[in-house]
Amino acid sequence: MPTITFQPMGIETDASPGTPLLDAARAVGIEIHSPCGGEGTCGKCIVRVLSGEVDSDGAGVLSRSEVADGYVLACRAKALAQDIVIEVPDQAGWEGGKFTDASEDAHLVRKELLPQKWDYDPLAVKWFIEVPEAQLEDGLSDLERLTRAIQRQWGKMDVRVGLPVLRRIAGELRKDDGRVTATLIRDEKRLFVVGIEAGDTTVRHYGIAVDIGTTTLAVQLVYLPLAEVVATRSGYNDQIACGLDVISRINYAKTPERLEELRKRVLNTLNQLVHQVCESHDVQTREVVNAVISGNTTMTHLLLGLNPEYIRLAPYTPTLAEAPFLTAEEVGVDINPESWVCLSPSVGSYVGGDITAGLLCTDLAAGTEDVSLFIDIGTNGEIVVGNEDFLLTCACSAGPAFEGGGIGCGMRASLGAIERVEVDPDTGLPTFSTIGESAPKGICGSGMITLLASLFTTGWLDAAGKLDRTRRCSAISAESRHAAYTLATAEQTGAEPLIITELDIQNIIRAKAAIYSACCLLLEQVGLTFDDLANVYIAGGFGRFLDLEKATVLGLIPDLPAERFHYIGNASLMGSYMVLVSRDFRQRQLDLARRMTYMELNTNPSYMDQYTGALFLPHTDPDRFPSVTQPKQGTNKKN
Amino acid sequence: MPTITFQPMGIETDASPGTPLLDAARAVGIEIHSPCGGEGTCGKCIVRVLSGEVDSDGAGVLSRSEVADGYVLACRAKALAQDIVIEVPDQAGWEGGKFTDASEDAHLVRKELLPQKWDYDPLAVKWFIEVPEAQLEDGLSDLERLTRAIQRQWGKMDVRVGLPVLRRIAGELRKDDGRVTATLIRDEKRLFVVGIEAGDTTVRHYGIAVDIGTTTLAVQLVYLPLAEVVATRSGYNDQIACGLDVISRINYAKTPERLEELRKRVLNTLNQLVHQVCESHDVQTREVVNAVISGNTTMTHLLLGLNPEYIRLAPYTPTLAEAPFLTAEEVGVDINPESWVCLSPSVGSYVGGDITAGLLCTDLAAGTEDVSLFIDIGTNGEIVVGNEDFLLTCACSAGPAFEGGGIGCGMRASLGAIERVEVDPDTGLPTFSTIGESAPKGICGSGMITLLASLFTTGWLDAAGKLDRTRRCSAISAESRHAAYTLATAEQTGAEPLIITELDIQNIIRAKAAIYSACCLLLEQVGLTFDDLANVYIAGGFGRFLDLEKATVLGLIPDLPAERFHYIGNASLMGSYMVLVSRDFRQRQLDLARRMTYMELNTNPSYMDQYTGALFLPHTDPDRFPSVTQPKQGTNKKN
Repeated sequence: MPTITFQPMGIETDASPGTPLLDAARAVGIEIHSPCGGEGTCGKCIVRVLSGEVDSDGAGVLSRSEVADGYVLACRAKALAQDIVIEVPDQAGWEGGKFTDASEDAHLVRKELLPQKWDYDPLAVKWFIEVPEAQLEDGLSDLERLTRAIQRQWGKMDVRVGLPVLRRIAGELRKDDGRVTATLIRDEKRLFVVGIEAGDTTVRHYGIAVDIGTTTLAVQLVYLPLAEVVATRSGYNDQIACGLDVISRINYAKTPERLEELRKRVLNTLNQLVHQVCESHDVQTREVVNAVISGNTTMTHLLLGLNPEYIRLAPYTPTLAEAPFLTAEEVGVDINPESWVCLSPSVGSYVGGDITAGLLCTDLAAGTEDVSLFIDIGTNGEIVVGNEDFLLTCACSAGPAFEGGGIGCGMRASLGAIERVEVDPDTGLPTFSTIGESAPKGICGSGMITLLASLFTTGWLDAAGKLDRTRRCSAISAESRHAAYTLATAEQTGAEPLIITELDIQNIIRAKAAIYSACCLLLEQVGLTFDDLANVYIAGGFGRFLDLEKATVLGLIPDLPAERFHYIGNASLMGSYMVLVSRDFRQRQLDLARRMTYMELNTNPSYMDQYTGALFLPHTDPDRFPSVTQPKQGTNKKN
Repeated sequence: MPTITFQPMGIETDASPGTPLLDAARAVGIEIHSPCGGEGTCGKCIVRVLSGEVDSDGAGVLSRSEVADGYVLACRAKALAQDIVIEVPDQAGWEGGKFTDASEDAHLVRKELLPQKWDYDPLAVKWFIEVPEAQLEDGLSDLERLTRAIQRQWGKMDVRVGLPVLRRIAGELRKDDGRVTATLIRDEKRLFVVGIEAGDTTVRHYGIAVDIGTTTLAVQLVYLPLAEVVATRSGYNDQIACGLDVISRINYAKTPERLEELRKRVLNTLNQLVHQVCESHDVQTREVVNAVISGNTTMTHLLLGLNPEYIRLAPYTPTLAEAPFLTAEEVGVDINPESWVCLSPSVGSYVGGDITAGLLCTDLAAGTEDVSLFIDIGTNGEIVVGNEDFLLTCACSAGPAFEGGGIGCGMRASLGAIERVEVDPDTGLPTFSTIGESAPKGICGSGMITLLASLFTTGWLDAAGKLDRTRRCSAISAESRHAAYTLATAEQTGAEPLIITELDIQNIIRAKAAIYSACCLLLEQVGLTFDDLANVYIAGGFGRFLDLEKATVLGLIPDLPAERFHYIGNASLMGSYMVLVSRDFRQRQLDLARRMTYMELNTNPSYMDQYTGALFLPHTDPDRFPSVTQPKQGTNKKN
């Protein structure tokens, strides 16, 4: 078979003719970004043929000069019957491979919403019992004596014990004269014994709270007796190599083998993080007896190996919204194999368990009459409005712009990302700061928001998203049809300059318009306005901060007094934690999910009107953003 | 590594010095009988060293001449650092490897006790439903729509669906516009969906009834819509190589690895038989959606991988009596992986699921006032007495004599076994018939019973089990301390002659005494005598017949009119079938098991008295067997 050599890694592999280069690379562990899921449309999997020839079906999204230089799309180019050498370019945002822990910071959450001491009642309890010795007289089996001992404490519940625990009962009961610690999970009528150990091991009692995002996974190790977070780790979802957003993942999963690959990839990331949090505190993975996992509906389906195809196709139907009782072994999570992997319930295909978890961090779950709004900004935006009487939700496709996708020099909030920009009113030149204070490699969501807001307030950008070509500014070039703004020079980056085009700016404007107009429509449906809102909760992985004032300038979030806004960061992870330590919160979450009404935007005729109106900075209707459009008259709010 | 060559197979294997020959043989698939479980006490694993030397720790049970001839015990002899050649002798009863189907004949069961048409209500039902299409309006997931469709038919039960079925729902629902066949298993409050297939597949609906005996496994394929047995296969339990009776198996299972080996062995046999019954009728194993398995408590523990150690040790405590809901995948049975493996409940360590299954074939399960006795004769004898008001049970260790164990030329009821013997009153010479009418290879249980009864009634054997040395008979040799009886000459066998010694006869007498005295004691406990019994049911693997008259002559079974006896063969298999086709019978079986009171014989002081009294033919007390001891006065009953 012909050999493919990948540079600069120097990795060689044999590949039969016809193998796509993307597959050949993955087979030897080389991850090439393929945000569109191998559809040939995103152009991100670009590689260069250094020697030999490949079978490439035309240029696709590549420019003529790129094709002339030997560039091909790895997903579309196939090996021929000859040896080739392929160069894999360094990909923006890929280096480091590790988010800062910033997005998992919980310092902004409203502490009074957290489970209080009296709420601590974990889903999985460890309970020390003394099981009477076996006796000839009563002839009771080990299981019967254990069951009766448990029922004496917990009442005449149906006690269930799975095979792996059954296999250990005889031994554990006899190691310490019947003194054992049972790990129990209860629902209304039944009690599952998910672990049994000789002696009193109640102090070794851990759980994990998990957020499975399309981009990032976060895992918290929680010491259950004290409901204390002892370690947090996060990392890229290994599925990224198969597509950047849920739609491209669904496209990728079209064969059972690829669905299985995606399942393995997310488990791989999850289990690595589980081992990391456990090792950091000398905890054995078998001492972790419960996992609560929140993720969007597609992530949940891929984790369980459920076919996600019909999530994408009208009428957008998931296999399930509430998962049944599943053991860690069934799901493949490396904790106590018998323990419960509890999945946050979803509402529909585009409002998932991350939202029902996130809601627990808001007044929306607290049963007040005050109406609040919850906005989770990601590749998809999910929005919930309601109070104790009603809960209405919708989802919109914002696109990956806020996460750095679809933007020429966009990247995720990792090392080297420009996260904040100020533009000089007079010169139009930028000053910026990067994550890790290293040389700029690209710009992340929070950077884009501050950049655009600053360009707009200084007059260098107009309401339609066009750069000012009338004034002289060395950062603005207007040579092509779409003007461009140089954010960082080649000197500053040490490589290519970082340039934002008007097309990139349009992508951001479309993203903010999608979210803002979805909020408007949702409120309209219930006959309310933004002014009626007591609180607005914003969740998302913007990184260490979200500049609310700048977000208002763009028209991403409504123009309201600052005290009504709460940036709650990774609310999905926080919600998982709440459920893990409190059965009451699990019940609240199930109730919330069942109470929520989903509104489909795609079929709503007025959504397009709302959206079109929002395609300006901050909006076509200046009265909606008085503090931006009439700053002197309005109250200056967000400093 | 040195090479071991096994003859006459000619199989070679490398074995590191110190490896027991038994282990080396097993590793290459050569089964050497080791009834004592490798304890070095039974002498059955004898092999001969043809060349080279081994490390053997003394003679043990071998005679000096055997040791001089190079014989060693395979369990005790270990390889040294040199090549050796080992001869594995042909082992009586081992050839063929296959029972006749005779022991599975159900022709003797009382047909009126079988589930009637109106009782047909299998544990697992296949049910055709039309699930409404997904709709944007209601936003119901696939699982919710399926659940609601099921609940419309079956009521508001809790519907549970496991992961493997969840993974198929989306696809199956869309293949034939929502027309699917669901396989359902119900308990009181819940409904488990264990299968889903597009279209109407209700006619492809099978289950298996299984008896796991210590010696033999039997599997029946049942077409569930008609409750029809379509195929029956039986075979040796692959665990035999690790010990002949339950105690030696328990001894063998002392490490987790060996427990796992035993589990794999019984699964191996079971799955082979499952494939055989399925292939015989072109049934796919996934079309088998339920298994009902009956076996003694040790067999059940080994099948599930539960540590059987405490079954053997006072106070004889099993891990469980009633197994929880277990899937075929968990247990390892090669049928539809999600389907239920339903285990017959046991009463205690020595009264297992084979007995609660067997009882279903008797009036004891029919709820009459008449008192009946149930005797299951095997390596262990289990006895139940009772009626609708009470059920008392006990177990006794009969030893393997009736199955050919512990008898010099004993063998199981397979090809070449002498199954019936008549002795000439004048000459004392035997005439016999063999299974398959082939040359005699040994004698099985039914043969031993007819031989001893015939020797006794013709006066060649006395009540104490001594052969008549006073009359001249070429078959009787009285050279050693224990006289011997030649059953078949070298000429007849074409090999060694078949000889029964007085020691062998004592083994049979001890076995019958154990069973008879246990029956007496059980009746005594409830203040009854044999005459109070309306029916006596005898179950066991005696082969194609059990001569009841001869069994009475020996004092194995009580002296009662013939019409009260019912030989019901493999009642455990029949009971499994009944449960498989009728939920009502499953409930009856659970009720029976819970109602039964177990009496421990080992701690009962009068058991030894009863036993000692029964160590004569037919008994020390001749009045108990009037038809044997006073044949002219008594009614001649059993012809």
